[in-house]
Amino acid sequence: MTEDGNENAAQRMFDGDALMRSFGAELDDLGNGTATLSLTVADNMVQAHGTCHGGTIFALADAAFGVACNSGAHPAVAQQCSINYLRPANVGDRLTVEVARRSESGRTGVYDGSVMAEDRTLIAEFRGISRSLPPRD
Amino acid sequence: MTEDGNENAAQRMFDGDALMRSFGAELDDLGNGTATLSLTVADNMVQAHGTCHGGTIFALADAAFGVACNSGAHPAVAQQCSINYLRPANVGDRLTVEVARRSESGRTGVYDGSVMAEDRTLIAEFRGISRSLPPRD
Amino acid sequence: MTEDGNENAAQRMFDGDALMRSFGAELDDLGNGTATLSLTVADNMVQAHGTCHGGTIFALADAAFGVACNSGAHPAVAQQCSINYLRPANVGDRLTVEVARRSESGRTGVYDGSVMAEDRTLIAEFRGISRSLPPRD
Amino acid sequence: MTEDGNENAAQRMFDGDALMRSFGAELDDLGNGTATLSLTVADNMVQAHGTCHGGTIFALADAAFGVACNSGAHPAVAQQCSINYLRPANVGDRLTVEVARRSESGRTGVYDGSVMAEDRTLIAEFRGISRSLPPRD
Repeated sequence: MTEDGNENAAQRMFDGDALMRSFGAELDDLGNGTATLSLTVADNMVQAHGTCHGGTIFALADAAFGVACNSGAHPAVAQQCSINYLRPANVGDRLTVEVARRSESGRTGVYDGSVMAEDRTLIAEFRGISRSLPPRD
Repeated sequence: MTEDGNENAAQRMFDGDALMRSFGAELDDLGNGTATLSLTVADNMVQAHGTCHGGTIFALADAAFGVACNSGAHPAVAQQCSINYLRPANVGDRLTVEVARRSESGRTGVYDGSVMAEDRTLIAEFRGISRSLPPRD
Repeated sequence: MTEDGNENAAQRMFDGDALMRSFGAELDDLGNGTATLSLTVADNMVQAHGTCHGGTIFALADAAFGVACNSGAHPAVAQQCSINYLRPANVGDRLTVEVARRSESGRTGVYDGSVMAEDRTLIAEFRGISRSLPPRD
Repeated sequence: MTEDGNENAAQRMFDGDALMRSFGAELDDLGNGTATLSLTVADNMVQAHGTCHGGTIFALADAAFGVACNSGAHPAVAQQCSINYLRPANVGDRLTVEVARRSESGRTGVYDGSVMAEDRTLIAEFRGISRSLPPRD
């Protein structure tokens, strides 16, 4: 395994994410404990009010969290997530979230991310808690 | 407005939910402050581990929450949600969530839902906080 | 160990709770996965607005959670808690919280509790996630 | 009202915090959207395991949050808080939390804080959501 092995693992998390692929999401950036994803809100990603579905916003953040928490020495899974919705997003909006590790303690990681529209309007705040698994072979 | 006006509003929340439609979700039941939704995990709803994406599980619960919190006298929006992931779900699994109102105080509603597989295995626990808006005309 | 061993363990959780003792809290009821605690808001439990400190309200719920999640076969510790504040409470108010287990899955337990004033006004909604430890000797 | 009026308001939040006074807590630092508080875990702040009560840890963070979210132009109240417990703390430990504003959107503020022991061991991660009230006279 080369030095960039963990980045590879994180990249594979994104490449294998079928939900993000179906949303047309892109991986904009990737670092140690961080990942930036974006998508454009399409007609099939809204709820009845015509604004972006909370599930779409959450899924984008959750996917970035999944990439970020798999960029370290150990694979990890999501244990718990929370989201605060601050502003609605609309069809055509480009949403970006940068999720970054805030802390790590034992097997638990704490990750935060702000979902923003193109004009830097804050759409939602996300926090995810990960649990690391035994090391990869 | 007839007596079943609120149920109509809740039904419209589901009918207009394009994300749930694209997931093939169904509205199984609807009551005062409750809604039951289900979907079958498809190939395009998974993450890189091949199990159901956290975003899919969350979106199902969030959509049921949106229906349930719009079944009362006032329209309502989601303010904050949290989810605890307990077991992975797989492609082909039928996931069901019944979201029910736990309490209401002023403009704030608290809703809980358990996402379960067909054999009643608990997949995730969801809590959503709603904020009600001025009454419909 | 007698059949009521777990109830004894839960009772000991309350008896050994020095913070609740300093708050003058009482254990009103105890069952399998449930615990009801109450306290009267005193002058030294408020914040600068003169209303009951969020930390007091949380501590009462957290203590009931600690008792409830130790009423089963295994000892357990708190992993994560969240609270929504709905109404302020005042000096002299008698606050009661009944925390009950919502679900259990593997080592994870989900517990909910509503903090109420004597007139059943809802003060706060609490959710706690426990992690069970290896069985007692 | 002088330029430091908001800092005064935040200082008054701490000075009027009877629970923190009874815990012997100190306000170590105060800025625009930030507050650092500390306390030493005493015998009457523990639970039955003999370690620091979750309610004590939470209350310290909640109090810092209350100071921090009242350091801006408007008074604010806590709406929702969550805490993840990472390591136990013991009697005699000096706990410090620096709560800082992460974002503000409309009337909603998002604040994060890490509770640490003297050796920088991470004890808990806290997130608080505030709601601002109409401006002070």
